[in-house]
Order: sequence, then C-alpha cells, then structure tokens
Amino acid sequence: MDPLYVARPLLPAMSDLNLLFEEIWASRIVTNEAAMHNRLEARLRERLGVPVAKLFSSGTSALQCALLSLDLPRGSEVITTPLTFPATAHAIAASGLEPVFADVDPETLTIDPRAVEKAITPRTSAVIGVHVYGTICDDDALQDLCTRNGLKLVYDAAHAFLARKGQTSTAAMGDVSIFSFHATKLFNTIEGGLATSRDPAMAERLQLSRNFGIASEESVRQVGINGKMSELHAAVGLLNLDAVEEERGARRRLRAQYDEIVRDYPGLEPQVRQEDVEQSEQYYLLRVDPRRFGFSRDELYDRLKARGIHARKYFWPICTDYDCYRGMPVASLQDTPVVEQAKTTLLCLPFHSGVTSEHVQVVTEVIESAAAEMMGRSVNG
Amino acid sequence: MDPLYVARPLLPAMSDLNLLFEEIWASRIVTNEAAMHNRLEARLRERLGVPVAKLFSSGTSALQCALLSLDLPRGSEVITTPLTFPATAHAIAASGLEPVFADVDPETLTIDPRAVEKAITPRTSAVIGVHVYGTICDDDALQDLCTRNGLKLVYDAAHAFLARKGQTSTAAMGDVSIFSFHATKLFNTIEGGLATSRDPAMAERLQLSRNFGIASEESVRQVGINGKMSELHAAVGLLNLDAVEEERGARRRLRAQYDEIVRDYPGLEPQVRQEDVEQSEQYYLLRVDPRRFGFSRDELYDRLKARGIHARKYFWPICTDYDCYRGMPVASLQDTPVVEQAKTTLLCLPFHSGVTSEHVQVVTEVIESAAAEMMGRSVNG
Repeated sequence: MDPLYVARPLLPAMSDLNLLFEEIWASRIVTNEAAMHNRLEARLRERLGVPVAKLFSSGTSALQCALLSLDLPRGSEVITTPLTFPATAHAIAASGLEPVFADVDPETLTIDPRAVEKAITPRTSAVIGVHVYGTICDDDALQDLCTRNGLKLVYDAAHAFLARKGQTSTAAMGDVSIFSFHATKLFNTIEGGLATSRDPAMAERLQLSRNFGIASEESVRQVGINGKMSELHAAVGLLNLDAVEEERGARRRLRAQYDEIVRDYPGLEPQVRQEDVEQSEQYYLLRVDPRRFGFSRDELYDRLKARGIHARKYFWPICTDYDCYRGMPVASLQDTPVVEQAKTTLLCLPFHSGVTSEHVQVVTEVIESAAAEMMGRSVNG
Repeated sequence: MDPLYVARPLLPAMSDLNLLFEEIWASRIVTNEAAMHNRLEARLRERLGVPVAKLFSSGTSALQCALLSLDLPRGSEVITTPLTFPATAHAIAASGLEPVFADVDPETLTIDPRAVEKAITPRTSAVIGVHVYGTICDDDALQDLCTRNGLKLVYDAAHAFLARKGQTSTAAMGDVSIFSFHATKLFNTIEGGLATSRDPAMAERLQLSRNFGIASEESVRQVGINGKMSELHAAVGLLNLDAVEEERGARRRLRAQYDEIVRDYPGLEPQVRQEDVEQSEQYYLLRVDPRRFGFSRDELYDRLKARGIHARKYFWPICTDYDCYRGMPVASLQDTPVVEQAKTTLLCLPFHSGVTSEHVQVVTEVIESAAAEMMGRSVNG
C-alpha cells in the first residue's frame, strides 16, 4: 500500500487542460484578469449566489486584500482564533495590524463570540472568524457583536467552500469571506483563492487591491498588491469545478464510513454535526480523549503513521505556540482556554477520493487494536 | 498590421511544456516548493552566481517577503523613488510601513543618493532602490549611505534581470534584491518573482517568509505569507530560461535600430548608456524634450497609437500622483523635484522579439513626419 496523506489534489485530465491551454497560448494573454480568469469568476459568482466573487493568487492574498479593502487603521487590533492555519494570523501581522486571540467554543471549536467580546479594546478594528474544518461560526452572534461595536467582520472560509447554513452560503456572511483554492482544498486551482461579499460596493475595492490599486492606465486609486490568478491556474479551476461535486460525494461517503468506525469507541468523537448545515467536506476531524479512549492523539497518530496512514495534528501547534506569537494571551471565559486542551486531541484523517476501502480497513484495524490493547491493560491492570 | 504593445510574453512551445506537465501530473505534487520549483531555483542560483535565490509567486510578494525578512520596525519609514511601478511603494504600505519618496538623478533617473540622505529621519529603517528601465542605481553611494545610517538596502531589480555592473550581478547588491518574472518581463514564469542575496543567512528567512513561517510540521518560526510559486509556473520558467538569451539578443538589435532612428532628432534622447553595465534589455526608454523636439511626449504617444503602435507613458503617473500618496513630499536637491519634469517626457517603445521591421518603419515614419511638421511650422511660422 502506498503511503496515504490527508489531502490529494483533484486534477483534471491533461488532455482536457490542453484544450484550454491552447486557447491561452493562441491569445498570448496569460495573466492579468484575462479570459479563463473571468470565466471562472463568473461561474463562481453564479454558483455561490453572491454579487461579489473575486479570484486571487491564494487564500492568503485574498485575506490580505480583504483587510486592505476594509481600510483598517494601521496598527489596529484584529481578533481571531488561535485554532487555524498560520495564514489567518500572519495575514493580520504582515499587514501591519495586531493579531489578538480569542478562545473557541468547546463544542464547535469555532471562535467563541463571548471570548471575542472580552478581547475587544478601543484599538480593535475587525474580527476574523474561521469556519474551521468546515464547522460554521456562530454568525448571528458575531455579526451582532461586530455591529454593536463598529467592527468589520471577515470570515476565513478556507475550509468551507460550497458550505451553507440554512439558505445562507458561507460566501454571504460578514463583510468579506475568503476561500482557499490551494491544491489541498476540496476545490483547487493549484494555488488560488477567492474573496466574496454580499455587498456590491466591495467589488471595486477588492479588485483594485489585487491589482496594485490600478483603476486605469493613468490612475492608481488605492494601496494594492499583486493578488492576480494566472490563466493557467484559472484553467485548472474551470475544469475542477466540473468535478467538485463528484469528489464531494466520495468524501461524504467516506465521512459516513469513518463515523461508523469511530462511534463504537468512547473517547473517539467525530466533528460536531451542525443542524441545518451543508458541510463543505474539506476535512474529517477526529477528537481523541485520552482519558476515555486510553490512547492519546499522538499515540494514535504514530500508530497510523507506522501503517502508512499520514494523519495530521491539525491544528497543532496553535498560533500562540508559534515563536512569533508565543506568550500572547488567549481571551477566554475559562482560566485555561478551551483551545489549550482541545489542541492536544485533534486529528484530521486522510479525506479524499483516493482513500480506498483498504485504507479504511487499516484505520479500523489500528483503532481496534489500540482499543483492544487498552481493554487488555484495564483487565490485567 | 496587428496592434503592437510594449511587451509580449515569451512562451515555450506547448509540446515542450506538456512533457514537464506530464511529470507534474504523475507526481501529483503541484505546488509547495516541489521538483520543478527546486530545479528552477538551482538553475537561477547558478546563473546569477549568488548563494541565495528564492522563487516567489510574484515580484511583489518577493518584495513583501524581503521586507518581512529584514524585520523592520512596524510603522518605520522606507525611502524609495516615486518613478517606479506601483508595487514598490505599495509593498511598503501594505506591510504597515511608511513609504517616503526621494528624487531621482536627472541623468540616470534612478534614486539620487543625495536626495535619500535628505529624506532620512530617526524613523527610517530601509531604502529601496529601483534599477528603473534596467539602469543601475548608484550602488556604491547607496550602500555607503545605508551602512553609515544603519539602514537596510533593498533593490527592486524587476527591470534588471541578468544585468551586471562590472563583475557584479544585480542579484548581489544590497541586502536583498527582488526580480519580477511577470509575463511582461524579459524572463517570465507567467506570474512569478525572485529574491536574491549575497548573504547566506537570508536564505532561511526568505524561505520561511514565503511559506507562512513554517519550519516543520510542528514549528512556525516567524510571520510569513503565501509567496510560493506553483509547479506549473516553474515549468514555464524552466523552458523560458533556455530561450531568454535569444530573446535578449533580438532586443539588443532592436535597441540599436531605435537608437539609430532617434539620434538624428534633437530633443529625442534614448536612455542613458552606463559605462561598464550589461543591460537586462527589459525596456526601451525614449525621452521627449518638447522644447527641442517640438512635439510633446503625449503627442508622440497619440500619433504612434493612431498607427497601431501602443507605447507606454512609463512611469506616468508617478507614485506621488496616486490618490493614496498624493501630496506626499519628494525629498530633492531642487525646488521642483527632477522627477516632476522627467515624468512628462518618458515613453517606453514596444520592445520584444515580436517587433518587426515593418513596425520599426512605422515608428520611423511617425517620428519623421512629426519632425517634418515642426520644420514646416518653423519655416512658415
């Protein structure tokens, strides 16, 4: 069995891609918001049902440009969760803003609006919620809080493409939402990202911010960077968009299989299932309670790895463990933040259409044998 | 005759590219500093003769990461030239630093070290020189100034790939140099960039800064963004690198042809030819003195455009004309900064291997007829 990793990029057939590349080569226009790019943007705007959907070179550049577009005061504070990929906090810091961390809800692991409230100071300008593992933030509470306090609300929806809560797409929450189309994502453009908004006024600011603020050959209107997606990456996206629901279906079936394995073992808990939410199917998160399961997350990780199954300790370390943010407080309702305990229990299993029944069998065996060993230990102990 | 633009992307044959894409597809590793990327980095390091050459998703992300890597105090001032592409100033502002502008030398149009000296304050942390149109900055004076004042020195060498002054490559000047590999550049990777340094210690910081500061699966060491070049873009680069000297040769011949046309007309001046400098051959710059030539730059631009030749008023507007920097002073030795007059005279002519003798003939005719018209005006006037 080949080693299995958490993610495997969805790639179109080379022959299909060649047809699009021939179009690009014939036009000799290979970047700068050209034909493939505009076609993909139009399809995403329609698919997500939002007036504003702007492509970017990465989810991170989308987030940097979202922050630029909101014109936050230099050096002001932006509150976010420490349980996220480094990009969330780094996009804040790399923009000359100050990341401030607030604790997560123990059940959903998304940022806790009550902890956010505790973290607000006169210097706070915005909140970035993260739909971590595709679990949707408490948007009602966060939006209410931000409105009351005059704060901008941004969502890092890197894990929540195509997800909905009721009739509301994740693309239509807050002031801006950003998505990652990195190779490891459900839908990928090799490298890429998207920023969406329900506010039509954001369209121009996002577009200017991704293309150096250039409004015309003779006018530069605002600060902007290079956040442009090339035609090559956009072409991959056009083809992958046709394949994404099939991939998502395979992942839904895999989620059911994993759930089936896990539910027999006290101390192994799958990610919370939210009422009225249609999951993106980006990650399969398992929480390992060492006191109840007997094995720690790290032990389970090592045993899977020994059998060629490479799970990820996601997210470990958390942001406040990084050298650059170490020692920064996590605003919390608890003496010890929820996230400090949670981070030791989180394990993302390989989750894509390349996971075979053979792989699932190995996962089952590893969990079964660990559990059996524990039984033995407690019987003999 | 088809319309002719200032730049035309150098593109490899699709059949050659397909061979590399098949390798990428077989590996299923499409980004994150993989095989093509590492091959291109090694070739560039060798070609440029520097210990540090790190690929980036764009010249702008290279510059942002260079600034991140130098760990400049938040909000500190970075001095640069207003005669540059918006990316130079925006990379400073988008990083939470303060752009400060200093005048250019009247002959070279590069930043004037004496003007930089006037712009230094206790809050200055760095200087960004721009080798604009491939004209090399006065590195000796700038380096001396920065050393004396404890400032970092960065070069925006977007126009100066493969250029040398004496034995010194533009990749080996200052603390870091950055290059753009955008489609419009002599050497392109569709979208892309490079940061180089003669200081081996910069390698790790630049690498961390382009990949979220991630040192290993369990360690995040510094603030970083997503500055990664994908395998698709790197593959284009590998093939284009083989073709770049041929393209450069074609441009050298074109430069000689343009020089030949221009030299007969008082008031039309080609870009300064620097002693001991090997030009990159990125742009062909023409300076139009309206008092001596009789026609203004804008009139010449319009007449060329009417004949299908799309020149560029490069750089017009200058940074201090942008909405976001308007009203900011330009430190200068003159009452009116040199750059204010220069910006009205600058015109970049189409400059690539797609410019035919027919195109050159049209340029000749437009200039001839303008000059003849002026003669007529003065004879009859």
